Amino acid sequence: MHARFVTSTLTGSARVIKAGHPRAASLAFTAPAVRKFFHTSPWTLSVNAPEAANTPPTHSSSNPPMAFPCVDQLEQRTQKFLQSFDGGPEPSYSNPVSGYSLYQHNEPFLLDHGGILPKFEIAYESWGELNEDKSNVILLHTGLSASSHAKSHPANTAPGWWEKFIGPGLAIDTNRFHVICTNVIGGCYGSTGPSSIDPKDSKPYATRFPIVTIFDMVRAQFEMLDSMGIKKLHASVGASMGGMQSLAAALLFKERVGKIVSISAAARSHPYSIALRFTQRQVLMADPNWNKGFYYDKVPPHSGMKLAREIATISYRSGPEWEQRFGRKRSQPMTTPSLCADFLIETYLDHQGERFCLQYDPNSLLYVSKAMDVFDLSASISAETALRRARNTLRLQEGKGSSAPANAATPPEEQAAACSTTVSPEKQKKQEQQDTPKAQLSDLKQGMSSLKDVPALILGIQSDILFPVWQQKEVADCLREAGNKNVTYYELDSMYGHDAFLLEIVNVGSAVKGHLELKE
Amino acid sequence: MHARFVTSTLTGSARVIKAGHPRAASLAFTAPAVRKFFHTSPWTLSVNAPEAANTPPTHSSSNPPMAFPCVDQLEQRTQKFLQSFDGGPEPSYSNPVSGYSLYQHNEPFLLDHGGILPKFEIAYESWGELNEDKSNVILLHTGLSASSHAKSHPANTAPGWWEKFIGPGLAIDTNRFHVICTNVIGGCYGSTGPSSIDPKDSKPYATRFPIVTIFDMVRAQFEMLDSMGIKKLHASVGASMGGMQSLAAALLFKERVGKIVSISAAARSHPYSIALRFTQRQVLMADPNWNKGFYYDKVPPHSGMKLAREIATISYRSGPEWEQRFGRKRSQPMTTPSLCADFLIETYLDHQGERFCLQYDPNSLLYVSKAMDVFDLSASISAETALRRARNTLRLQEGKGSSAPANAATPPEEQAAACSTTVSPEKQKKQEQQDTPKAQLSDLKQGMSSLKDVPALILGIQSDILFPVWQQKEVADCLREAGNKNVTYYELDSMYGHDAFLLEIVNVGSAVKGHLELKE
Repeated sequence: MHARFVTSTLTGSARVIKAGHPRAASLAFTAPAVRKFFHTSPWTLSVNAPEAANTPPTHSSSNPPMAFPCVDQLEQRTQKFLQSFDGGPEPSYSNPVSGYSLYQHNEPFLLDHGGILPKFEIAYESWGELNEDKSNVILLHTGLSASSHAKSHPANTAPGWWEKFIGPGLAIDTNRFHVICTNVIGGCYGSTGPSSIDPKDSKPYATRFPIVTIFDMVRAQFEMLDSMGIKKLHASVGASMGGMQSLAAALLFKERVGKIVSISAAARSHPYSIALRFTQRQVLMADPNWNKGFYYDKVPPHSGMKLAREIATISYRSGPEWEQRFGRKRSQPMTTPSLCADFLIETYLDHQGERFCLQYDPNSLLYVSKAMDVFDLSASISAETALRRARNTLRLQEGKGSSAPANAATPPEEQAAACSTTVSPEKQKKQEQQDTPKAQLSDLKQGMSSLKDVPALILGIQSDILFPVWQQKEVADCLREAGNKNVTYYELDSMYGHDAFLLEIVNVGSAVKGHLELKE
Repeated sequence: MHARFVTSTLTGSARVIKAGHPRAASLAFTAPAVRKFFHTSPWTLSVNAPEAANTPPTHSSSNPPMAFPCVDQLEQRTQKFLQSFDGGPEPSYSNPVSGYSLYQHNEPFLLDHGGILPKFEIAYESWGELNEDKSNVILLHTGLSASSHAKSHPANTAPGWWEKFIGPGLAIDTNRFHVICTNVIGGCYGSTGPSSIDPKDSKPYATRFPIVTIFDMVRAQFEMLDSMGIKKLHASVGASMGGMQSLAAALLFKERVGKIVSISAAARSHPYSIALRFTQRQVLMADPNWNKGFYYDKVPPHSGMKLAREIATISYRSGPEWEQRFGRKRSQPMTTPSLCADFLIETYLDHQGERFCLQYDPNSLLYVSKAMDVFDLSASISAETALRRARNTLRLQEGKGSSAPANAATPPEEQAAACSTTVSPEKQKKQEQQDTPKAQLSDLKQGMSSLKDVPALILGIQSDILFPVWQQKEVADCLREAGNKNVTYYELDSMYGHDAFLLEIVNVGSAVKGHLELKE
């Protein structure tokens, strides 16, 4: 097998030059001392190889083997899990959720791509008093991996993910508003997701969970609002994926959303952010412990999750921040460079991965991040979705079974038509015209035109790589072109990248407060 | 184990709201049809789940299991490798290198971090005639994973990685210049690297290969030039890692480098690019087949390599290019979204990973990408390196053994001093002063001051994420501030990101040609 890397193989017309009497270049150490060494002592006389202590010495090699404590650590965690199944102590893991309320929906719920949830639950938390006519509600949507715990409260005193944005007098003023934050369906912090039990066989759904969309998440939320008797929101507020939900809510239920706040989000995911999420999913799915999603009674894919989070963290922050915070500092400057975490930026990523790898359900990461990729407010997509919903409903009425085939929602005859080589020149031309960026933008504008009467705050961060600021500009432009006279668009020059919405309490907070409280 | 994702667990002060008579929201499909279905047909009546064909039906679940052909594919490749070890047919793999020449260096070579190569080889290719006084040589340095095959020639007619930049009348004019391109030490395309045989025990080095630096690569190249009797280069030319080598060559051998061309490179790696390479290494090292680098007679870590390349590809290109090239197009628009490659951008990344995963030695990726991280032209780093070289040489002279301990090059007494808590306030203050960005920039300027007499072309791409354009600006500024009167600095507005140096034949080519041929 070695020959596939042709390191020491001469092929073709190779000529060989031997180093006869190499001229000593200023810093080239081919000195007599080195030659002498090679006829005397082996490297094992060398001092100070603490990290290689567990590696048996290989006296015969020219240099000592490297140590890989980071690889050992992953293996040790796997072993710890395996021991726990043998009746040993449970490995410790984080449980960041408690003290939430639960909405139970006991009717079947048809999802946008044809899957069905026989029933579902939504975990939610709330702050501030609901007024008498239930008109002061703010529905707060979360980012990908957040729970409903946006703010501490008596039942869970841990700080929430928007702790300093919610409270009396703060950006979302709990003296004025009743704030409800939910965990999305597909997630794992109390709402129904892949780790939930499928009522059909009382086993976790795992990857038998159906594909879920941002619109599905929002429709489920509004089922909950219905049951609470909340007819109209004062505002739909969210950042990142939450900012997508915020727009989706107004699109689906425009009469029921008073205002929109959409921070660091987009009207449709662009290929670069899809690429970033794709690699995270692939890395996770390549972990043998992922086991196609069926790991709930086995060792979880902790290694894949750690790696996925490391990649995600790169997309959440920015170069300028890290330049300032870590620069080129190394964790142990006096040691030889190592292939495990070495520079401070590497130990930071390692730490972020460690923190997350047992905190969030890997399958939820797959489904929820995919929902973000698929998100698109374009008119053609909305029309397709409406058609699919109607067709699936009809098929169920006819008793033809679930419309949730594994990877294909379209009847074979339609697929065949789509793949047919006999597309008419007119149709081909029309398709090509639709494929231009200009036509796609026009499609998006049309899809968002119904949002013309909802006042909106659109906020972007200039250093955001995942949701670059041109995407928020696109949202604002589409709204304005639809005739929306109440679009506020801000760009922040924060160096915190995508995560700025969690960190820029004053800059983000003021914009949110102003928008929520301004009389229009 | 399931309880760690608290999906269906009520904790704390949870209140439960049941969906009594949910108001039918405009698009919420909890219609009678759906309820009816749940009392009748199972999903297995569903039409058209072609990709799930190999998955045994699970009649008892609410939805069908998803298919994961991308995961199956990885497993199938592993099985194919395993079969090949049982005497079956060898799996096919790419062998992109042939027809190179080989420089053999049969003297021990001491590396910057204390490792030793008892001997080494450099694969190289050349184009154009060497003139009589050997003054028309251009040394071309490669990026991370490139071979010496920059241009086709009779012994290897495949197009090279700079095929359209090298030739008569082209950017590097072979009517004027003798171009030599080498594969770096640490690589795998003919030069000595981790997949080479350690002469001490006749086994591949694997991760017993010592840490190698950009300066080591360049010193090895100049050993080769010595043996060829080439005293001075007309120019040292390179992009990406090659642009680092280009600068390093002039710094180490300033009398021997006539001109510098450094494209899309940096004087020191910044934390964001270190982070991007770190995740690639971690993903690769997490592949169980990597086996701490000892895979040469086993299944190679093809899965980890594929994933690493997918991540790398994200850093090599740009959002605007992908927006234009792929947009939001899906490979099979009529199917339900899939967790394997689905959008065109995903199939593109998948393809890039597939192409690369058996083409380049995984251990080489680790060592060479690490060399890029460690690269830093700052004066303090150069001084440390010089000290280390002197110390290691001395230690060898004293017969104390190799100075290449696994992960630590500093004697224990010095490490202890470095970790000591009794640092004097003065020393602490001095250290803090050195740690400011301003002090670090001053350190870099000092380190590059010796380059003041070498004409330099510094070229950057505005859409480059891996080596952002401010890094090329930094190089140009440092050279100019050192008093260099012949610094040409261009920024290109190409949308191809870091890879622009491979694609922008006219824009990059003209700059290179102008710089190489201008009389100064």
